Amino acid sequence: MKYRLLSPGPTPVPERVLLAMAQPMLHHRTPAFEKVFEECRVGLQWLYQTKNDVLMLASSGTGAFESAIASFLSPTDTVVAVTNGKFGERWAKMAKAYGCNVVEVKTEWGKTTPVADIKAALDKNPGAKALFIVASESSTGVRQPVEEAAKLVKGKDTLLFVDAITALGVWSIPTDELGIDVLVTGSQKALMLPPGLAFLSVSDKAWKAMETAKNPRFYFDLRRERDNQKKNQTAFTPAVSLVIGLAESLKMMKEEGLQNVFARHERMARATRAAVQALGMGVFAETPAQSITSVAVPSGCDGEAIYKALRDKYNMTIAGGQDHVKGKIFRIAHLGYYDDLDILTVTAAVEMACADLKYPVELGKGVAAAQRVLLERP
Amino acid sequence: MKYRLLSPGPTPVPERVLLAMAQPMLHHRTPAFEKVFEECRVGLQWLYQTKNDVLMLASSGTGAFESAIASFLSPTDTVVAVTNGKFGERWAKMAKAYGCNVVEVKTEWGKTTPVADIKAALDKNPGAKALFIVASESSTGVRQPVEEAAKLVKGKDTLLFVDAITALGVWSIPTDELGIDVLVTGSQKALMLPPGLAFLSVSDKAWKAMETAKNPRFYFDLRRERDNQKKNQTAFTPAVSLVIGLAESLKMMKEEGLQNVFARHERMARATRAAVQALGMGVFAETPAQSITSVAVPSGCDGEAIYKALRDKYNMTIAGGQDHVKGKIFRIAHLGYYDDLDILTVTAAVEMACADLKYPVELGKGVAAAQRVLLERP
Repeated sequence: MKYRLLSPGPTPVPERVLLAMAQPMLHHRTPAFEKVFEECRVGLQWLYQTKNDVLMLASSGTGAFESAIASFLSPTDTVVAVTNGKFGERWAKMAKAYGCNVVEVKTEWGKTTPVADIKAALDKNPGAKALFIVASESSTGVRQPVEEAAKLVKGKDTLLFVDAITALGVWSIPTDELGIDVLVTGSQKALMLPPGLAFLSVSDKAWKAMETAKNPRFYFDLRRERDNQKKNQTAFTPAVSLVIGLAESLKMMKEEGLQNVFARHERMARATRAAVQALGMGVFAETPAQSITSVAVPSGCDGEAIYKALRDKYNMTIAGGQDHVKGKIFRIAHLGYYDDLDILTVTAAVEMACADLKYPVELGKGVAAAQRVLLERP
Repeated sequence: MKYRLLSPGPTPVPERVLLAMAQPMLHHRTPAFEKVFEECRVGLQWLYQTKNDVLMLASSGTGAFESAIASFLSPTDTVVAVTNGKFGERWAKMAKAYGCNVVEVKTEWGKTTPVADIKAALDKNPGAKALFIVASESSTGVRQPVEEAAKLVKGKDTLLFVDAITALGVWSIPTDELGIDVLVTGSQKALMLPPGLAFLSVSDKAWKAMETAKNPRFYFDLRRERDNQKKNQTAFTPAVSLVIGLAESLKMMKEEGLQNVFARHERMARATRAAVQALGMGVFAETPAQSITSVAVPSGCDGEAIYKALRDKYNMTIAGGQDHVKGKIFRIAHLGYYDDLDILTVTAAVEMACADLKYPVELGKGVAAAQRVLLERP
């Protein structure tokens, strides 16, 4: 069986990007590389819908989020962290590791955080230095109310840090219009690259906060990066081949057009949801993100068994459930380099896996439901 | 003119490695990736000549050095940092950024740090938590006395951190035999990969120190990495394509044999030095490293002009001089994927550039000197 990848990261890398990255190594202190870097900088600002600096780091997305904590916060700062899944919890833990006083706004996994809960926490902690929110909580497939959260901190000193690792390039997140101070993403998601690069935008408000922020930093010192990246260089050796790949993937996204990129993701998401519902399964997320569909399996079915059957019998990587939702859900990603037929393929494979497991599904029914959605062409 | 790369990093990536990395993306939570990861782990221990854990991070070498400072040290710890060039100075600055009390053992750029100076600093600071030393100071081409430094801390509580970024895989650095606690390297050097991965070995003594070390850490939390990497996973998404490339480059090094890898570097270094000396130039480093030749230009010549002529007329990247030795030296790297004819090519190009600049060199004289060395076959 051919290998097929439908996980929320890494996502498949287009052949054009693979070939671009397979070119002989280029030194980064050269006009040729600086040209590529500048293309990437401008392209990222386009994708972020921002005039802010968008910086690039050789790290995973976790490293980029850490660079914001290290650069813009101080030990003992109060931070309001919105958590309803594994990634929100990670940022809360990270801020604690730096000595911050973390106020968690906790919501059950799979549910959307009520805006009123975020407001209450901010009202109780008017001195909060930052609000953390995850746009697309990959562990559950929930889309969080970033737009409303942005309104809550508008005009205040509180910085808004948004984890958009599986959201940027999936739906429109207009950084400047919303007033997002820090928006983090990673290369191996909608940007269709291998893992190893991470990105974040930084507002003037965040740069101002850095003047008094005291957390220790060196590799993740964003001021140093800004000063270098303005000149199309990086403070430390960049992941050259990935940067070259990025220029190519941004070119692909521009060719498609930003609105079309968003529409494609929305279409993939709708088809996937129709498919799993036709198979008698549920959508786990209260407000689902267009990047990933978390499928709630009916009682008597084991989501982990479906995940494993796809892995072992069909050589396909989707995602299982993590922590306490293990077995209760499985997750199909559709962010990045996917098309209509990929969705039909994964749906057909899920049907086959269910048949193998003797779960009660009608073969072809999920595929047909997805097909009907996909035939509603714009 | 074809592009040619002879810098101390990134270094050229062999075609076999480029092709391995150009394969379709693979998910990291799969048995297939875990097998590759395990091959890398075992291969790195072979290259490091160690039974210690060798950990892998998605970062540049600077990030790996920081992970050691973040994981094994506390603010206010005293650290003895040996500095005689840009990289030694970087680690001193980094430790200061974390609040450490840094005692610098400073030596002039190009000179080798006298072991007696290191001993004196350690004697004066018996409570020093760590000694930092750069095996190959890329900014000057100096090879530092790591073996003697290791003897000075043997049996003491002081941890030995070695920056072997342009040394590991160039000459023999037997980690366990020397008792090195932390040995850092990067992917884009002798390992013949693109930048984006970094590695470090960790001794039991360092792990013990971590139990009480208080610096903040999350992305660079090495205990978390150890616990994951034992199971052939990483704490955060790994740079998958680079890891796949690493398995291939380690395979190439094993095919060649470790002693042959070292002998090759020694041979390249000797030929390069003979070449530049025949051209009336000097070797800048008092004790030159086999990874890079820093060439001291005669008075009346501008090293920066030679660097730029190679760049602009011959499409070749070597390295210029940094900071206060800019203009006084240029640097030819020969670590990683180079062979005899590459050395003759760069020598010939230097001769051409000097002729272009009307510097007094006899065409072919450097090439002939290098040829004579290369013809002394073992």
